[in-house]
Amino acid sequence: MMTHTTWTSRPRRIIGIMTGTSLDGIDVALCTIGVENGRHSVVLDAFATFPYSDACLELVQTVLTEPIRAAEVCDLEIALAADMAAAVERLLQEHNVDRADVDLVSVHGQTMWHAPQPHAIGARTMGSTWQATNISALATLLNRTVIGDLRTADVVVGGQGAPLVPMFDLHTLVHPNRTRVALNIGGMANCTILPPTASVDTLVAFDTGPGNVLINAAIRKTYGKAFDTNGDVARAGNVIASMFDELTSHPFYAMEPPKSTGREMFDDAYAAVMVKRYGHPSLPMEDLVRTMTECTAWSIADHIQRYAPKADDVIVSGGGAHNAFLMELLRDRLPTVNVLRSDDVGIPSDAKEAMCFAYLGWRSLAGLPGNIPSVTGASKAVVLGTVSAS
Amino acid sequence: MMTHTTWTSRPRRIIGIMTGTSLDGIDVALCTIGVENGRHSVVLDAFATFPYSDACLELVQTVLTEPIRAAEVCDLEIALAADMAAAVERLLQEHNVDRADVDLVSVHGQTMWHAPQPHAIGARTMGSTWQATNISALATLLNRTVIGDLRTADVVVGGQGAPLVPMFDLHTLVHPNRTRVALNIGGMANCTILPPTASVDTLVAFDTGPGNVLINAAIRKTYGKAFDTNGDVARAGNVIASMFDELTSHPFYAMEPPKSTGREMFDDAYAAVMVKRYGHPSLPMEDLVRTMTECTAWSIADHIQRYAPKADDVIVSGGGAHNAFLMELLRDRLPTVNVLRSDDVGIPSDAKEAMCFAYLGWRSLAGLPGNIPSVTGASKAVVLGTVSAS
Repeated sequence: MMTHTTWTSRPRRIIGIMTGTSLDGIDVALCTIGVENGRHSVVLDAFATFPYSDACLELVQTVLTEPIRAAEVCDLEIALAADMAAAVERLLQEHNVDRADVDLVSVHGQTMWHAPQPHAIGARTMGSTWQATNISALATLLNRTVIGDLRTADVVVGGQGAPLVPMFDLHTLVHPNRTRVALNIGGMANCTILPPTASVDTLVAFDTGPGNVLINAAIRKTYGKAFDTNGDVARAGNVIASMFDELTSHPFYAMEPPKSTGREMFDDAYAAVMVKRYGHPSLPMEDLVRTMTECTAWSIADHIQRYAPKADDVIVSGGGAHNAFLMELLRDRLPTVNVLRSDDVGIPSDAKEAMCFAYLGWRSLAGLPGNIPSVTGASKAVVLGTVSAS
Repeated sequence: MMTHTTWTSRPRRIIGIMTGTSLDGIDVALCTIGVENGRHSVVLDAFATFPYSDACLELVQTVLTEPIRAAEVCDLEIALAADMAAAVERLLQEHNVDRADVDLVSVHGQTMWHAPQPHAIGARTMGSTWQATNISALATLLNRTVIGDLRTADVVVGGQGAPLVPMFDLHTLVHPNRTRVALNIGGMANCTILPPTASVDTLVAFDTGPGNVLINAAIRKTYGKAFDTNGDVARAGNVIASMFDELTSHPFYAMEPPKSTGREMFDDAYAAVMVKRYGHPSLPMEDLVRTMTECTAWSIADHIQRYAPKADDVIVSGGGAHNAFLMELLRDRLPTVNVLRSDDVGIPSDAKEAMCFAYLGWRSLAGLPGNIPSVTGASKAVVLGTVSAS
């Protein structure tokens, strides 16, 4: 524990840990974060993605999809902390970084459920969200200070608990004379609209809908592959018009921001229903993957056209930035826009969310709020998270 | 966030929240905690027990007993935070205390599962424990700093995660020339052996087994009552010798300390099996309650005779201190010992655990370890808990 002024008095080495809904690994980003000429500076020093242990991944998938007992929930939180601790240790070892030099580990947690809309909970009507991992266990295993559960406070004050990346976008991507859109394509896709005048008070950001989740679910169902490398399968297929029409009529897309989504809306089960409904032995399987990819591209491009008609650049991060065909579809649907990868502006695409959570953890220890009420719908800005000191 | 020396520089007003496995309410203790002549001082300023909301209690019981979905776990954590926030607000209101004067809220959490013995979890073999409530939500709802999850760190370093009360007993109950036993009879029962020479390095403390859990389960099954007021039902019954023999042969009792237990070993289902096995239409139902009470008294007295043969005083706290018949049985089984209630030495029996958790939270913010390795079996002393700053 330390005072806020002590915390910001020198650059801090902070590890961000991101584990997305796509369950494709544990992203670990070692960053140096500080204040330079009154601006926050976030520099990536090292990054790697490590696999979950088989046992942990199985437990996560069980809790996500099956009826469970309290014992499994109890183990899940510790299993995730153990896997995350191992991932951090490997990154430090591979880059010869002394753990004593790490000031903070800031962890997103594994999203198990996200229901931010007010509903009856106990004696109150409020939202809830669950980013699993045990913070105390992670701090004890690593012998470092750890912060996590960075979405709940925003939900408690009426926010969607997401997106939180816009605070990071605002401090790292605003350009003096170009209108930018920061787009992250993970399991879900979200964007931040960044005109040169962007500020915490006026920022617009929201989830556009599925990122890789439907594409991955379709290719798993049809080809048994984890994801569509470079989008090659989708490229070989044709759009199934009726399926595209049904997919794009999902009510989420027409909702006005601020809005956020997750696996409670777009998940494997939803994709499976669509694949079953439109799949046919006479139909090339790649058509199903193509249609999911087209729906994803459409939903992203449509939101950018609706909410950032003057966009100059779309800066893409997340696993979806590796889907060359998805990137082509975005360029086709946004002909006047420069669609580039986050790497091209100094933020490696795969590392961005982990860097963001490192930054959000740094903000909390600086006593700074991490949510943007205009973006999440919260009634006020709040300091996010829960901290275990080492 | 503040430095440790700042934290201990003046007395702090700390609220402890205890919710036991017996689910009989939310105990809230407002304490003043500070350092006086080098000793820690814990003074109770106000105390009350508030009911859970019906919806929250139902959710807790569902998660404890039935297969559940991730959504219910997510809501459970928030529901408990909401109920606990309401309980704190009521206490402050009833005693005209300004919430701004509260330095910290320290919450035990609702124990949903406790499996501290090492078992396969993800990629590791370790223990796990789950004290439900969302700390970030509670801090946001109350706009105060909150600490919770005070057992996990001890489990991670190989401890049983319990008992934690002995640290509090050591600082509040040691007598210069009497050997004392601090005994808490909650859902489970635990004791701390306190010779005049007691110290963190030599302290012996452990769970003796069930506290009220079996008695309550038996009277619920037979009379539909929540508990046996004053032990009157048990007093009217006779011991069923065969049932007593089977109950007291449970292997937990013969284990050597350090040891801890919970509902995963002694629960309603275990009690129901016993009641079914020994209950008979021709048998007075009070005999079942009497036998459960006798087993509880035996297990407590037997442990005291085994591990504190020179005890002068047994100081009883927890709901069981109100069971006059259980207290009589203890006096009968411990004829040379002065069996008194915690209230008689300045620590109201019902408030003790909540006071203890207020004290443990205070210790963590002072940077002091909260576990006692000789008691929990941990490999080292660690600072406990996870903190959300307001």
